[in-house]
Amino acid sequence: MTTLLRNCRPMGGTAADLLIEGEVITAIGAGLPAPEGATLLDGQGMLALPAFVEGHTHLDKSRWGMGWWVNEVGPRLIDRIDTERATRRGGFDPATQSARLAREFLARGTTRIRSFADVDTEIGTAHSDALVALREALRGTMDIQVVAFPQSGLLVRPGTLELLDQALRNGADIVGGLDPSGIDRDPKGHLDAVFGLSEKHGKPLDIHLHEPGELGAFALELTIERTLALGMQGQVVLSHAFCLGDVARAPALYAALAEAGIAVATTAPPSRAVPSVRAMRAAGGRIFAGNDGIRDTWTPYNMPDMLQRAMLVGLKNEFRRDDEIAWALATVTDWAAEGCGFAAYGLAVGARADLVLVEAETVAEAVVATPPRRLVLSHGRVVARDGVLAS
Amino acid sequence: MTTLLRNCRPMGGTAADLLIEGEVITAIGAGLPAPEGATLLDGQGMLALPAFVEGHTHLDKSRWGMGWWVNEVGPRLIDRIDTERATRRGGFDPATQSARLAREFLARGTTRIRSFADVDTEIGTAHSDALVALREALRGTMDIQVVAFPQSGLLVRPGTLELLDQALRNGADIVGGLDPSGIDRDPKGHLDAVFGLSEKHGKPLDIHLHEPGELGAFALELTIERTLALGMQGQVVLSHAFCLGDVARAPALYAALAEAGIAVATTAPPSRAVPSVRAMRAAGGRIFAGNDGIRDTWTPYNMPDMLQRAMLVGLKNEFRRDDEIAWALATVTDWAAEGCGFAAYGLAVGARADLVLVEAETVAEAVVATPPRRLVLSHGRVVARDGVLAS
Repeated sequence: MTTLLRNCRPMGGTAADLLIEGEVITAIGAGLPAPEGATLLDGQGMLALPAFVEGHTHLDKSRWGMGWWVNEVGPRLIDRIDTERATRRGGFDPATQSARLAREFLARGTTRIRSFADVDTEIGTAHSDALVALREALRGTMDIQVVAFPQSGLLVRPGTLELLDQALRNGADIVGGLDPSGIDRDPKGHLDAVFGLSEKHGKPLDIHLHEPGELGAFALELTIERTLALGMQGQVVLSHAFCLGDVARAPALYAALAEAGIAVATTAPPSRAVPSVRAMRAAGGRIFAGNDGIRDTWTPYNMPDMLQRAMLVGLKNEFRRDDEIAWALATVTDWAAEGCGFAAYGLAVGARADLVLVEAETVAEAVVATPPRRLVLSHGRVVARDGVLAS
Repeated sequence: MTTLLRNCRPMGGTAADLLIEGEVITAIGAGLPAPEGATLLDGQGMLALPAFVEGHTHLDKSRWGMGWWVNEVGPRLIDRIDTERATRRGGFDPATQSARLAREFLARGTTRIRSFADVDTEIGTAHSDALVALREALRGTMDIQVVAFPQSGLLVRPGTLELLDQALRNGADIVGGLDPSGIDRDPKGHLDAVFGLSEKHGKPLDIHLHEPGELGAFALELTIERTLALGMQGQVVLSHAFCLGDVARAPALYAALAEAGIAVATTAPPSRAVPSVRAMRAAGGRIFAGNDGIRDTWTPYNMPDMLQRAMLVGLKNEFRRDDEIAWALATVTDWAAEGCGFAAYGLAVGARADLVLVEAETVAEAVVATPPRRLVLSHGRVVARDGVLAS
């Protein structure tokens, strides 16, 4: 199939046409001739952006579309973990919920998602397996990376390590880790275990690190040491890494992360100090963004809308200038694709034709106004108009 | 005019009808009989909220609807002030812009606004006068409080004090102050001057206090001393008061503010520490929210949408439970009406019939999802449907 998308403004630049052959953008320019038989799309002068990347979410936890769940959870991390495990027993279907949320993401212009999937001794590999099945079902429409994630603890919950191993054999793409000290009470043991799984399966690693201050910085250093020792540069992500917002020696840590090729995933929560996008980029490192949970028992907030996340990244990092707000967008586009390892990304010749049209003059306006998605293309096909999926 | 609004759910409770006679809600209950000749409105089981209150904005600065303005401003406060003064000379019309933004607020369910209006030696009282004229033009549809605000400094810019005095004589409702040390370099002199104006005109006071840490806490204490000495409890607002997020002795300051009847207005910016809603309420004090500037040369962010602001307040204060998220809504409803002194407020018999219907199960859902405003009533009349003004 050949498509000519006429009169859109890539990244807010001058009007151009995009020629799409099959799944790939093959030409970008003004006044491109329409090949015979090509489908014509009218971009109406709208802003064109590459389709978005969700770099950190939990598709398998969301209660999106299930009716409102009244949150009466206590304030501690363990209250949230316990509440979730208890509510899951009441007939929560991760396959249905993951699919539902993925489709909402697609309708709002996201075609690539890195999602964690809980693995524990109660649910086994069911959530991870469900996400692997969803990944296959959506192949050709969306790219989903599945992280097998020990949400309830790894070493503290015997049997979980074997289940993670099983989830990876069943097709999960990435090994997940979680608070080596705060949850597992054994930073060396936890990190040796997850790096070991990563090495065994030849799969990347993504570690939730909520631990604050020097405790988090210690785990971060242990992670750097193992990444370098195993030659896993470019294969490791630290999610949250709140400690980078806490400690005075953060500049040295940003530099060390950059040198070790470890990327940071941030949700840019307004309520606490977080890694600085500016500092991480200045150090030559990679940082990208995600929603974390959406409408689940952990938090009622967040939307399957990466422009809203970019807005929150911009507000958190106090990006006011247009050139700075473009960085906020990059955390949910180019930088997220790089950090997660999604290939063929971008609004460029040779990239896969995944893109979004919105009514906005500039990239910065798209970020601050989060306008409706007028048109979403994935793999060269129109998949949504005005927030409604084509099928 | 009599209106019966049937089948809505006030604050997410059980379905009820609201009887509105003239501008006032005169009955709330299930199955109210329709008086002869009453206009009937179908609430379709939607959630009903009191119309919102914008507690801190700058209508006269917004470039809403003027086309995108590329922000290339430097990082300092003085860069922002200077840029604004320079761009204003290029044909910016505060009357048009204020009216445009006020109407956007109304379409999204806000009927009461406290707006600052710049007063300085370059523009004189023109912005304040324009807002006073807008206030009169919108009387019967929206309530606007005009704060005469020395944005470019008061004592450092001779002639400004006389202009503020003139703006108040011309009808501005409230005396504005700004960073007594940071901008005016004379905390005693600045505060004596603005309290003096307040006393002279018998009008309340609202002071922008960006000053961090102990410098801000010092100005806060000077403000408390003067409020008590002049018996102005309930007449003074401190806007921003970032210092409350900075200093370890904040608990004593919350208590002192509460005792002095000084309310705090917060914009809950994600990028820095701010006053805690929970702590201020626990101390028995008043705190409410506002957007600050919207789409102006200071910041491209923010929307004339108080549900979005409530969401940001909730995220900033880490309100996850439904009962906590109700507090976030209160910062743009009841608490803002109290803090600003807007009368006849609420979704209750005897209150003015200003209300909003949205598709949401609960108050918390309305805050986190910021759904479209299906119906907005002001003064008992339908003023907007689906975000479009009735006239």
